[in-house]
Amino acid sequence: MSSIARRSALPARAGGFDAQADVIVVGSGAGGLASALFSRWRGNSVVLLEKADELGGTTKKAAFWYWVPNNRHMREVGIEDRKEDCIRYMARLSRPEAYNPDHPTLGLSQWEYDAYAAIYDNASPATELLAEKGALEYRHCDFVPDYWAELPEDKAPKGRVLLPKGARESMSDGGEVAIRAMSAKALADGVDIRAGHRVQRVIVDDNRAVVGVEADVADRRTLRFGARKAVIFASGGFTHDETMRRNFQSVPVFGGCAAKSNEGDFVNIGAAVGAELRNMNYAWMCPIVLEKALNGDPGLIGTFSPSGDSMIYVDRNGRRVTNEKLAYNESAQAFFTWDPAASAYPNLVLIAIWDERSQKHSASDEYGRFIVPEGSDDAHVIRGGTLAELTANIRERLNKYAARTGNLALAESFEATLRATVERFNGFAEAGRDLDFRRGERQVELLFNGPAAESPAAPNPTMYPISGKGPYYAALLSGGNLDTKGGPVTNTDGQVLDHTGTPIAGLYGVGNCVASASARAYWAGGATLGPILAFAYLAANAADAEPRR
Amino acid sequence: MSSIARRSALPARAGGFDAQADVIVVGSGAGGLASALFSRWRGNSVVLLEKADELGGTTKKAAFWYWVPNNRHMREVGIEDRKEDCIRYMARLSRPEAYNPDHPTLGLSQWEYDAYAAIYDNASPATELLAEKGALEYRHCDFVPDYWAELPEDKAPKGRVLLPKGARESMSDGGEVAIRAMSAKALADGVDIRAGHRVQRVIVDDNRAVVGVEADVADRRTLRFGARKAVIFASGGFTHDETMRRNFQSVPVFGGCAAKSNEGDFVNIGAAVGAELRNMNYAWMCPIVLEKALNGDPGLIGTFSPSGDSMIYVDRNGRRVTNEKLAYNESAQAFFTWDPAASAYPNLVLIAIWDERSQKHSASDEYGRFIVPEGSDDAHVIRGGTLAELTANIRERLNKYAARTGNLALAESFEATLRATVERFNGFAEAGRDLDFRRGERQVELLFNGPAAESPAAPNPTMYPISGKGPYYAALLSGGNLDTKGGPVTNTDGQVLDHTGTPIAGLYGVGNCVASASARAYWAGGATLGPILAFAYLAANAADAEPRR
Repeated sequence: MSSIARRSALPARAGGFDAQADVIVVGSGAGGLASALFSRWRGNSVVLLEKADELGGTTKKAAFWYWVPNNRHMREVGIEDRKEDCIRYMARLSRPEAYNPDHPTLGLSQWEYDAYAAIYDNASPATELLAEKGALEYRHCDFVPDYWAELPEDKAPKGRVLLPKGARESMSDGGEVAIRAMSAKALADGVDIRAGHRVQRVIVDDNRAVVGVEADVADRRTLRFGARKAVIFASGGFTHDETMRRNFQSVPVFGGCAAKSNEGDFVNIGAAVGAELRNMNYAWMCPIVLEKALNGDPGLIGTFSPSGDSMIYVDRNGRRVTNEKLAYNESAQAFFTWDPAASAYPNLVLIAIWDERSQKHSASDEYGRFIVPEGSDDAHVIRGGTLAELTANIRERLNKYAARTGNLALAESFEATLRATVERFNGFAEAGRDLDFRRGERQVELLFNGPAAESPAAPNPTMYPISGKGPYYAALLSGGNLDTKGGPVTNTDGQVLDHTGTPIAGLYGVGNCVASASARAYWAGGATLGPILAFAYLAANAADAEPRR
Repeated sequence: MSSIARRSALPARAGGFDAQADVIVVGSGAGGLASALFSRWRGNSVVLLEKADELGGTTKKAAFWYWVPNNRHMREVGIEDRKEDCIRYMARLSRPEAYNPDHPTLGLSQWEYDAYAAIYDNASPATELLAEKGALEYRHCDFVPDYWAELPEDKAPKGRVLLPKGARESMSDGGEVAIRAMSAKALADGVDIRAGHRVQRVIVDDNRAVVGVEADVADRRTLRFGARKAVIFASGGFTHDETMRRNFQSVPVFGGCAAKSNEGDFVNIGAAVGAELRNMNYAWMCPIVLEKALNGDPGLIGTFSPSGDSMIYVDRNGRRVTNEKLAYNESAQAFFTWDPAASAYPNLVLIAIWDERSQKHSASDEYGRFIVPEGSDDAHVIRGGTLAELTANIRERLNKYAARTGNLALAESFEATLRATVERFNGFAEAGRDLDFRRGERQVELLFNGPAAESPAAPNPTMYPISGKGPYYAALLSGGNLDTKGGPVTNTDGQVLDHTGTPIAGLYGVGNCVASASARAYWAGGATLGPILAFAYLAANAADAEPRR
């Protein structure tokens, strides 16, 4: 969020500048800081402009796992990760409706194919350079599986994930660690970092080359920054622009986890100089606590880990409709089932329900869990001594938000159906097999299962019978964004392209503000940040090679 | 389709013109012709530029029903259609996830609400003026229900649909009739119509006002057309730009019914002068014959009418998954069910199967039916003397296209499951009630049921038991577009707006090339063309009031 209002994105004309540098970077998340560092290390002067009052963007809220195919540790310990295989895995998940194993670009566009190759080739060099320079040291997480580790296309299902050195054992604070390290290094190495600067538009010369940006600061002044070589945008997606969400995303999300400053600024700024927009329909997705999104809570973290073994999700009728432990990007889709015969999203809000066992043993403040310990912000938790009381309280809570959820309300028969659902689930838990949704059968489901009671043991660690005795707890969930994936399209050098495929001179983009070739896929933990570091590296190198204007 | 390639959409600067007029209209479907006529009737000189070599765009392929709330005939015969009720019906269906009956704009944005009000207020005057002038006379179709006639929000479920006078009894050739009448009238009244002109970009003056367009003609010349008052785009959606479809639409369609020249030109041209894009995710949808789309058949017509009583759709496993007779916009959604646990669209291709009874009595060349009479293009029809033979032939046909459908193939168990499915369906047909999908329970399903054998009668005219004896027939279907709904946003005067809500001086848009406020709704037959005529009327009136530049 910015206190400075959005204004026209139409490009300004070249003229006097308030400050100049070889490279101007917009945004201070991982994409921006890495672009600034890589540019600086090649001898360029760099100004970095951040809209918010503090640095770090969405990265700071992230666990900052980063997915680096064929990374140094894999090579050292001999985990084979062939380029062709890795690209195949990416393609299969990105556009399953087009994937064709026998096609030269696997059924996808050349742009997508080239992006996957660029990720494979550059994530590791980028990562190593950041580590060598002391800007971002890491540890290798050899036990972390890809999110689709069971797919036959995944030939290296473990070993691609790195984590910032110094992150805690639970791996949840990597973002803070990384932003601290990268921003300290940027300052030490002479990057001119300025927060509270909202870039409104680029500045173009008579040949339509981008030669700078105009940024507004809090006292309504507009400052003009000249870029002798290039402007690199890394300003995040459009999660917090409701109009853009409604008009571009494939599903009606209520919000998400991204930094509140992610309002899609580069969609307008880029389009106004002719950038082609791509992948505007898809997002990095995650279940979210509905009320946090509706209330605009800046502390909202996506529910990466749906902890609780004696815990289920049910719909307004009291029925289970999905595997609660699916990896977060996939789990989020369950909320957007469309019923064409009713013209309705029947699962737009699902209700997580758990008992005292899960409350006692699966509560945590990390990874956006909705089961939180005493003393945490638990305004979203609904309670009931019995299932009847819980039902009444869920009904009341849903009614409170009905005006914003298309009048979603509990069915009259909810409590009775819920009892039958619990009985059926309890049978699955006792047997260790979920015959309806196969809960707990994938590696990733165990990875994110979270803390749980150790005893008595159950045959499937993701399921335990829900107690016949209260108290009971509930929370309202929906599907949300981590951040969006659409924006101006770039080539593998990070150059922004127009719709004829021609680069817009001097204009680069990195991260969630530009189009991701991942389409709807979430290949693994860190499939956001690994590729972002690769593209920051490529963009900085290409920008360095630009002539000084 | 145009033989003239797309080139840069960046605006050109004002200067000399090859021709000038008060108003330049781009596109010759209903939106373009109506804009030209309304402009001309106010005394403006008008040049109309059409990219294709013939006039009519998508309109010419349409049945040209047009949905006109509170039209003259309704008023005359006393069918009440209150503005508030009509807006409520539109809002309920457009964004069901946001609809709130107690909110001042019903939970939708002010822009959407205002658009619905403008449609209600202006479709009838526009229609009457066209009729009075002899450009488009009509007949009132009082028996045609809205597509959601059963919704409590629909207070005038019948009576809003008009049809061009002179269209045949089956109402399928309204588009040809309308284009013939409207273009003849435009020529007679002095509109300067030029086909084979591909508009590539607008021309702007020093104040960024739009003062004309540049168009390429076949011999690679670029002609410059000056607009003293306004340019009105009515150039259609982006159904035939595969990159845009993939990067904007909420679902992965293979193509659609729109004129082949609908390649999204105005998305680029508008964005390059700062237009905000809206509703890029949704389309006017319809089932389509898969092979016609994959083969780029310009004659593809959406399957408005899934005729055949002894006919079912099954998935790759041989199971029914939807009500085959749902209204086309809703039926199309059934193909895009997403399975998050498999990362796949399991229903991306469904298989229509019918027997000799339906082949004999339900075949027709109209309304995009896949059951076609002898002598028609029936390359899409798969045949088999027995269900076993049919299964083998479906399997072979699917394999032929597997490289383009994400490797979709019949399950091994298809034939056995199909037999069980037929048995279950036959029971429903005999009883007259479809316990799985409620086929035939809505008015619209009867409206589009198409021709069928009169005897022996079945209790539900949409269902008849599938014969135990061959021959059998099948066709591969997917969901497709009629045309897309997204593009630059306009106000109710048709002025194109930038993302601050400011009109771009001199630039107007009408029809599928600009954002439709209908989001995912298809309110009734003619919900495309009725509103288009209303907005053409509003845009022409506002353009007329512009100062001459």
